[in-house]
Amino acid sequence: MPHLTFWYDLASNYSYLSAMRIEAFAAAHGVTIEWQPFLLGPIFRAQGWNSSPFNVYPAKGRYMRRDVERIAAARQIPFVMPKDFPANSLKAARIVLAAAAMGEIAAVTKAIYTAGFARGEDIGNEAVLRAAVASASSNVDEIFASAASVEVKDALRAAGTRAEAAGIFGAPSFTASDGELFWGDDRLEAAITWEAKL
Amino acid sequence: MPHLTFWYDLASNYSYLSAMRIEAFAAAHGVTIEWQPFLLGPIFRAQGWNSSPFNVYPAKGRYMRRDVERIAAARQIPFVMPKDFPANSLKAARIVLAAAAMGEIAAVTKAIYTAGFARGEDIGNEAVLRAAVASASSNVDEIFASAASVEVKDALRAAGTRAEAAGIFGAPSFTASDGELFWGDDRLEAAITWEAKL
Repeated sequence: MPHLTFWYDLASNYSYLSAMRIEAFAAAHGVTIEWQPFLLGPIFRAQGWNSSPFNVYPAKGRYMRRDVERIAAARQIPFVMPKDFPANSLKAARIVLAAAAMGEIAAVTKAIYTAGFARGEDIGNEAVLRAAVASASSNVDEIFASAASVEVKDALRAAGTRAEAAGIFGAPSFTASDGELFWGDDRLEAAITWEAKL
Repeated sequence: MPHLTFWYDLASNYSYLSAMRIEAFAAAHGVTIEWQPFLLGPIFRAQGWNSSPFNVYPAKGRYMRRDVERIAAARQIPFVMPKDFPANSLKAARIVLAAAAMGEIAAVTKAIYTAGFARGEDIGNEAVLRAAVASASSNVDEIFASAASVEVKDALRAAGTRAEAAGIFGAPSFTASDGELFWGDDRLEAAITWEAKL
């Protein structure tokens, strides 16, 4: 079965754009999606940045806001930038990994993105996360307990190592089953088409 | 008449992709193109980079080569990375500005891009430039003479100032007649559609 790995950081606004459309598009091409959260922070720090490049390079940051605004409007989905960007997405990443074990990673991921970028809430905040998870799952307590486990913490760290080994330097990224790498929401179509042809 | 400004650096490979398709696409939407060369160097230096970000960030550079390779293959156009990247595009930029006065900027621009990215030649080299211009224009000597004039040098410097004022931080970029900015070959469709609706 063709499968594409979708690498995302819960604080990444372009990843939000992909998360909200990847399922329908992949299904139409007979491709399954492996949802793979990871943290951009360590990857950005390795490039010498102490924050998102959208903060390090203000002209790029201003452009990005407008670009995502236009794309969201064209796709008729809401977009609200959180006041503090990027959010601390460590807990959110562990939570979606914990939800994966219950088969709920897609639903919980989309609920957290909706909080962060459709409502502009701070997903680094525990109460925001809890409300988002509760809107998508009836296993809130189990997910939060598992998110704090050593296994989930290790799994997230291992994801970061695999991301770097795959050549990933930003999010969203997509890797096909032959290792081919695609970067950016605007490469989603190409990535799915690539995987479908393998 | 709707018109879109196409900002490009002759050493930019993603700008090459746009230069080879912008005319047909713009014509189909009733939009005219203003070809506007500028230099990325000063803009990159203002961001603290002493070279292309594709050299400063090696993972991004490796990805870019593969990404452009895939896009060129899909569009059935040749793509060969020059050995030294990015080329020194100062003379090339002055030459296309000089060609503009003769109504030949599109043809000369495409000829230089073809040398640089379809054949991988060094467009910083005078003989390469001369051969490229000769393949597109019968005014080679006039163009080279004008390219060395104070007027053209000043016009190129002024273009850099206007680019920065327009919020431009990379190439290709497109600005609509209302000032709306689009960045990247993958935003060409959106830019033309935007301008066509104004």
